[in-house]
Amino acid sequence: MFHLLDILGTMAFALSGALTAMNKKMDPFGVFIIAFVTAVGGGTVRDVLIGRTPVGWMQNLDYVYMITIGYFLALVFRKSLDKLRTSLFLFDTVGLGVFTLIGLEKGIAINLHPIICIALGTMTACFGGVIRDILCNDIPVIFRKEIYATICIIGGIVFFLLRKWNVQEDVLYLTTSVVIIVIRLMAVKFEWYLPTLEHRNPPNG
Amino acid sequence: MFHLLDILGTMAFALSGALTAMNKKMDPFGVFIIAFVTAVGGGTVRDVLIGRTPVGWMQNLDYVYMITIGYFLALVFRKSLDKLRTSLFLFDTVGLGVFTLIGLEKGIAINLHPIICIALGTMTACFGGVIRDILCNDIPVIFRKEIYATICIIGGIVFFLLRKWNVQEDVLYLTTSVVIIVIRLMAVKFEWYLPTLEHRNPPNG
Amino acid sequence: MFHLLDILGTMAFALSGALTAMNKKMDPFGVFIIAFVTAVGGGTVRDVLIGRTPVGWMQNLDYVYMITIGYFLALVFRKSLDKLRTSLFLFDTVGLGVFTLIGLEKGIAINLHPIICIALGTMTACFGGVIRDILCNDIPVIFRKEIYATICIIGGIVFFLLRKWNVQEDVLYLTTSVVIIVIRLMAVKFEWYLPTLEHRNPPNG
Repeated sequence: MFHLLDILGTMAFALSGALTAMNKKMDPFGVFIIAFVTAVGGGTVRDVLIGRTPVGWMQNLDYVYMITIGYFLALVFRKSLDKLRTSLFLFDTVGLGVFTLIGLEKGIAINLHPIICIALGTMTACFGGVIRDILCNDIPVIFRKEIYATICIIGGIVFFLLRKWNVQEDVLYLTTSVVIIVIRLMAVKFEWYLPTLEHRNPPNG
Repeated sequence: MFHLLDILGTMAFALSGALTAMNKKMDPFGVFIIAFVTAVGGGTVRDVLIGRTPVGWMQNLDYVYMITIGYFLALVFRKSLDKLRTSLFLFDTVGLGVFTLIGLEKGIAINLHPIICIALGTMTACFGGVIRDILCNDIPVIFRKEIYATICIIGGIVFFLLRKWNVQEDVLYLTTSVVIIVIRLMAVKFEWYLPTLEHRNPPNG
Repeated sequence: MFHLLDILGTMAFALSGALTAMNKKMDPFGVFIIAFVTAVGGGTVRDVLIGRTPVGWMQNLDYVYMITIGYFLALVFRKSLDKLRTSLFLFDTVGLGVFTLIGLEKGIAINLHPIICIALGTMTACFGGVIRDILCNDIPVIFRKEIYATICIIGGIVFFLLRKWNVQEDVLYLTTSVVIIVIRLMAVKFEWYLPTLEHRNPPNG
């Protein structure tokens, strides 16, 4: 079940990466690379920073296959993907929850401090998009208006609180994912944004 | 022989990096860094992802020396480098072939799957240019119009086909390099490009 | 003493990163990430390249705390930070000296060549700013006009010369830091810049 969600999330992230790259008029190779880094970039940065090498996708080809499928789906259905927007958004949201959990797990496995584990979870879920935006020459969207990353951090805090209270593992995982997924859905529905910070206030500010 | 080609390729990549940076009005330090990452960036990303640390250029100073020579050549001859374009392009093409082979080798040495090895070969040959373009604030050129990376992938496939048929090692290396070099020369001569993909088709598309 | 300076430098780097991000109209999360990578990005790249993982800030939470403090200081005092410019600049300069020394040390600890150690020192002090600029979608400022990095290299050379002459360790560290700090202060005071290099000279050049 968990693995199936991971796979669906990877495919959804690859699809969204491919769509972004096609909007930038990239060639098929460029689109594939952007799809690839969007899907596995976060986990790759995490693995490199904790020294878990060769990084994940080099040891399990399932990721490569799922990204390739996501890539071709984006190519073939690019005209009709607007109609599939809701399904895509749901997969992407599932990916957000699952990827955060995977990042948390990797940190716990090597006894890192909860704060660092939460950073690893957030990184796993969000940094693929950061690398995608850098390669597309944009300021990363999650630094500007999406509360995306904030949701992962809240999910991480919920995870460690429940864990402290010795909640059973299944419940722990399920609750954390559900919290992340529900907040994301609400954030999009009710248009929750973080305000931007500005250095200089207006004269009468 | 192989090492000599590696060295020539490194110098050519450094030279091309330095020229790109000079077009961006960077200072001498910036130009050197761009020359450096263009030359060893691909191998560095590869080494980091497979956990081969300290990364290659830290363990063999030849790379640092060759990059420094390439950098000074670019500085001194920058007015006349247009006349040397053909030689430079040939060195660069040799670099492409040799760097791909080195990447393939590193992957095989730690028993990674052929697909991953081909990714490592392509990365070694192409990601120096990607980092160069990111540092220069451009969308990486190989994502937009160059078939550069595609050639490395073809070279990698040829390599593993020949290897499966138990071709002798010398022949294997030579054939792979020649395939890469010849396709590159033809691609430039006949102006082969990949078409760009666009997300939205025109109304009557 | 050394640790105190490291801490002050980290906070100063985080503050300067936060201010840059606020000028880019980022949200509070984006500003925090930019503050974070400005402060520890250089050391992180260094640790990844030499294989010292999990990277430094994951093993010592002091960095996370100091960055958080620097971040909130930037938020709270953003209107009056212009008045504190001189203090900030002094902390930043101390950071430059201390970070260079830390990088040199890490290289020496694993027996790398002095040239590589100097590269590691420079990277530790300067690459946080490079990553900050890439995330903010700018060409890194140290590649264009600041002699920042050059000062670290000079400091590194002084360090190895003194070390060759068997200067006592305390004196070695103190002199290197002072050299870096003094040159930086003079560079800013007398507006020392490296000239930019251009590829194409004017027709009558």
